[in-house]
Amino acid sequence: MPAHSKRRPIVEAGLALVHRDGFARTGVAAIAAAGGAPKGSFYNHFASKDAFGLELLDRYFDDVRDALTTTVADTARPPVERIRAYFELLGELGERDAYARGCLIGNLSAEAAPASPEIRVHLGALFEAWTLAIGEAVADGQAAGSIRADVPAATLAGLLVDAWQGALLRAKVRRDGAPLDAVLAVLVPALLAPAAP
Amino acid sequence: MPAHSKRRPIVEAGLALVHRDGFARTGVAAIAAAGGAPKGSFYNHFASKDAFGLELLDRYFDDVRDALTTTVADTARPPVERIRAYFELLGELGERDAYARGCLIGNLSAEAAPASPEIRVHLGALFEAWTLAIGEAVADGQAAGSIRADVPAATLAGLLVDAWQGALLRAKVRRDGAPLDAVLAVLVPALLAPAAP
Repeated sequence: MPAHSKRRPIVEAGLALVHRDGFARTGVAAIAAAGGAPKGSFYNHFASKDAFGLELLDRYFDDVRDALTTTVADTARPPVERIRAYFELLGELGERDAYARGCLIGNLSAEAAPASPEIRVHLGALFEAWTLAIGEAVADGQAAGSIRADVPAATLAGLLVDAWQGALLRAKVRRDGAPLDAVLAVLVPALLAPAAP
Repeated sequence: MPAHSKRRPIVEAGLALVHRDGFARTGVAAIAAAGGAPKGSFYNHFASKDAFGLELLDRYFDDVRDALTTTVADTARPPVERIRAYFELLGELGERDAYARGCLIGNLSAEAAPASPEIRVHLGALFEAWTLAIGEAVADGQAAGSIRADVPAATLAGLLVDAWQGALLRAKVRRDGAPLDAVLAVLVPALLAPAAP
């Protein structure tokens, strides 16, 4: 079996391990083995653990994009509803996971950013793409008058992403969804509400 | 020199290492050596790496308390100003650090919570204590009419902490303070504003 055919199973299996245990804590031998490759073969498939980390993040961001596509990007619905639907979907995914793993992008930002400039820069690009997608719904709401227009859409979108990431950390520690519920019930309306006329 | 006299230097030096590099990535030999103890002596001082992690968090939380005491707990000032002063102080500390390390509590929530129930539970208690301290200023503001009173003070305080933690992650990845500035300029006023009469 040629080496490249093992890449995808290793990335898939490695994603599950790193999402559960963290990047530093997950060894390359365990990643290879989980993907059905010989333990010592990791570096036949990836130039370095950091190179693997970049592929891992891209693979994870495919799922982020899928979730965005069915919610935030669904322009048939009102903008605020699109944003709410997105975070509601993330909340359901978190609940299914008992809030154990959190977001891979947030986790790697906390743990891997100091050690690897490549991963840090790549995480920055993913945050940008993520904020941009939410920012489009915010801008649509600003144009429609349902979202405050005195703050740039990108700023509001960034704050939504940040509040969610922070709430995920606390949900992970508490193992309950109350911090996520509060973002949806209190923070989203407070942050996006148009100024009183 | 008796073993216990080395504990404090090891915790201090270990704090610097773990804050910079993460918990999983920092080995016990390096922690002992950084504290001036023989490399192999870590387990003479701490029952386990997790036990050391708990001490590390308490040591870090001493600094959190100091920052809270001079800002959020300064009841001579108006409540919203106390809250702003606290996050402004954290922003200055972040800037001094070029946003490289972020918050140890957030970092360990992301990376260590899945692996150690003791650390996870302890992180939960620190988040509670932290939220409680900020919640007191929120409650004072609610009583004075300067902060919305239709949402529990603890919920608003939790959202402030979460938004800050998430913004710290993005600041760390970007190596700039714009996400933190946005929390102060946009999120704090939007979240705390009393309902229009």
